[in-house]
Amino acid sequence: MQAMAPKGLVTTDHLKQFKAIIGEQFVLADEETLTHYSHDETERLSYLPEVVLKPRTTEEIAAIMRLCNEYYIPVTPRGAGTGLSGGALPHLGGVLLSSERMNSILEIDERNLQVITEPGVITEVLQNAVKEKGLFYPPDPSSRGSCFIGGNIAENSGGPKAVKYGVVKDYVLNLEVVLPNGEIIWTGANVLKNSTGYNLTQLLVGSEGTLGIVTKIVLKLVPLPKYDLLMLVPFASLEKASEAVSAIFRAGFVPSGLELVEIDALKIVSQSVDSSAVPVNDDIAAHLIIEVDGNNMDVLMGEMEAIAELLTQFEAGEVFFADDAQQKTELWKLRRLVAEAVKTSGYTIEEDTVVPRAELPALIKGVKQLGKQYGFHAVCYGHAGDGNLHIRINHPTIKNSHGNAEMTAALQALFELVKSLGGTISGEHGIGLIQKPYLHTVFREANLHLMREIKKAFDPNNILNAGKIFDLN
Amino acid sequence: MQAMAPKGLVTTDHLKQFKAIIGEQFVLADEETLTHYSHDETERLSYLPEVVLKPRTTEEIAAIMRLCNEYYIPVTPRGAGTGLSGGALPHLGGVLLSSERMNSILEIDERNLQVITEPGVITEVLQNAVKEKGLFYPPDPSSRGSCFIGGNIAENSGGPKAVKYGVVKDYVLNLEVVLPNGEIIWTGANVLKNSTGYNLTQLLVGSEGTLGIVTKIVLKLVPLPKYDLLMLVPFASLEKASEAVSAIFRAGFVPSGLELVEIDALKIVSQSVDSSAVPVNDDIAAHLIIEVDGNNMDVLMGEMEAIAELLTQFEAGEVFFADDAQQKTELWKLRRLVAEAVKTSGYTIEEDTVVPRAELPALIKGVKQLGKQYGFHAVCYGHAGDGNLHIRINHPTIKNSHGNAEMTAALQALFELVKSLGGTISGEHGIGLIQKPYLHTVFREANLHLMREIKKAFDPNNILNAGKIFDLN
Repeated sequence: MQAMAPKGLVTTDHLKQFKAIIGEQFVLADEETLTHYSHDETERLSYLPEVVLKPRTTEEIAAIMRLCNEYYIPVTPRGAGTGLSGGALPHLGGVLLSSERMNSILEIDERNLQVITEPGVITEVLQNAVKEKGLFYPPDPSSRGSCFIGGNIAENSGGPKAVKYGVVKDYVLNLEVVLPNGEIIWTGANVLKNSTGYNLTQLLVGSEGTLGIVTKIVLKLVPLPKYDLLMLVPFASLEKASEAVSAIFRAGFVPSGLELVEIDALKIVSQSVDSSAVPVNDDIAAHLIIEVDGNNMDVLMGEMEAIAELLTQFEAGEVFFADDAQQKTELWKLRRLVAEAVKTSGYTIEEDTVVPRAELPALIKGVKQLGKQYGFHAVCYGHAGDGNLHIRINHPTIKNSHGNAEMTAALQALFELVKSLGGTISGEHGIGLIQKPYLHTVFREANLHLMREIKKAFDPNNILNAGKIFDLN
Repeated sequence: MQAMAPKGLVTTDHLKQFKAIIGEQFVLADEETLTHYSHDETERLSYLPEVVLKPRTTEEIAAIMRLCNEYYIPVTPRGAGTGLSGGALPHLGGVLLSSERMNSILEIDERNLQVITEPGVITEVLQNAVKEKGLFYPPDPSSRGSCFIGGNIAENSGGPKAVKYGVVKDYVLNLEVVLPNGEIIWTGANVLKNSTGYNLTQLLVGSEGTLGIVTKIVLKLVPLPKYDLLMLVPFASLEKASEAVSAIFRAGFVPSGLELVEIDALKIVSQSVDSSAVPVNDDIAAHLIIEVDGNNMDVLMGEMEAIAELLTQFEAGEVFFADDAQQKTELWKLRRLVAEAVKTSGYTIEEDTVVPRAELPALIKGVKQLGKQYGFHAVCYGHAGDGNLHIRINHPTIKNSHGNAEMTAALQALFELVKSLGGTISGEHGIGLIQKPYLHTVFREANLHLMREIKKAFDPNNILNAGKIFDLN
């Protein structure tokens, strides 16, 4: 059967039925609400949904999906709206389905080191809840204080700890999912190893809300490490800083965080918040933020010293060790503020490139060249230990990449560079709406065909977040 | 389009074309060869292929697949034939496609801690090659001395190190795959984080050769830990031993190996090899084999002592520390020999259950009860730290589970128990041919429908390892 494009509009009769399913107060179509849900954190894009629904239970979502599937009504699922690729933008109108009321942590299973949660729980809330039991859920996006765990699963988020602990996909054991036709499945089992049929769990992780709506999540946890140490290391050259990154791993160290921040990004942050903790002067081109964690303080001290010693080979400046919890918190806070600060300062276009980590110097060099060629200024920062470089672009006139031919050409050149370095176009933000024009850069038509066929298998009527990742047909 | 069952037979004209593609000497249809490739390590099953092909290159495989796809010839891909679920059995005749000539390690990328390999490399050969560079590839099936890395990917293998380091899926970054229609794709990129489209890489891992033929593999490596320590701990009760397993993790330890071996299994091993390293007496019901690894010997000694202390709460007997490399090797060798020894002794039916690790005692108790009820004797051993219990079954008259109604009823009861404990039917061996009657125990029809549709998306003519995991139509 040929997949059909969504063609339905939400009628007053549909609204009546939605109200019968979830209650009148959770069916919202006033202008203020529609406007609020028309955008996420992606550039400066906005699309109005026709109605916002806030269900509380899996069964309510199943009933909503049955109705939407019958009438070909487009459905856009949404977590906290912190996404950076437009995955939660309701670009086709229709229903905006918010998970914000599904915000309970259902069970912290201390016997098995697992947590079962609903998708609308804020990531940091989940982390703190398991921390109280001596357990650790490492994936940790910059937006952890506001993003939802469900959104993290949709985008396969990472964050600074990924370098040692892996990304979201490495923690998801099992998912309860409402399929577009309203059927409810569990994708796997609550186990650490699984060779039982195709891995639907891993297929759902990172599928950006296009295959099903995640309603319950079983996550693996690990014992909470007792100690961590943090240091900040300035470099006179961006290239040397990025060369140092892969040298650390080649020497046998696996830091629990290895971030790079270009000095321009820090300068911007320092305009809005007190950043006296981090030296900003003309001799410095970039900093590395390096964290190690574990259960033995002497071992960690030894590792930090050995890493610092190694970095002298890359012309590192004076190392700043964070002495206490307050200094560490301050340093991480500064790092987390970078994204927001540079965006507010005009760097509205955000890219999420990832390359094999030893190719970072080549990528950074290439970004700067492209900036000259295409007339933009870029600042680079991100999860250098993973080869995952966030590139924020400030163009004098172009503020959205989406739908702009000039910026599309510039980004096309960037992604061809990334591809040539063995990398890909998104490490943790997803493709969503704004990166889909570039997907052909890294995939052959055969790959895209398979993805479209998988989409059809899950969503033959093409109602669920259609037109994200790839075009409708 | 409706998927069609394979209907082709290999004709002399096909043979001629195969010879033109890969050379006459690699197209084999003599009785001895066909018999050799008619079985793997699964129970006592055997199915003759019509021809065995031994291609050397991706392009040769692509040409073979184009031909087979055109003429609806069934193709069964095969690694080393060490599988335990019948994934490599050519139960429909047709072409048996062996990867044994694709046995080169293409590149060990020390800059990025990655290895690129062909599928026909023996797992242990790969491990040793990267070890020489100070790198570590942890997934480590018992058959590592003979199995191929390609087969490990097909089954998402684990092994004893999975408890700390994860399974095959956690190491696969990117795959070159020949699709059933002969097209060649790369599933992802050579990067540590990836949110670029659906995760075809993870979909291929564990798909048991039903979606495509893996021809190149990019694996993540980690720095090789400098030291490891090993101990053997006897328990008077199987229940106490399995209770101790989850207690170790709850206390914050993450061993690099945590195996359980029931005394009956060791008794069988001791009949064929010298097992004086391991005490076997009437006071012992089971042993735990516990390994820790890391870069600091003092820390490891401390961990071992703390774990040993903890185990006294579970009525552990006298702990045996392996003193030197030879003792460690001997102990691991004994563990690895268990599978083969019990099979040779009549325990021909093998199950690969997995549950949340704290449910191990309940699973073991249930297995023993089912044995009484259904008239079989079972020995249990395996990766207790992961909740992955191998159960070998000796029935006085039934030697194959496949196609036997009585054994099917017994296994159905076993898998219902596993399901009720939150587990699933295979942790690392796959479903293949022999477990597919039980898949409905852990999945709803909607799950199976999605899997069949995914299969159709990759293989519309249903020629590639058809009838494995689920039935043809």
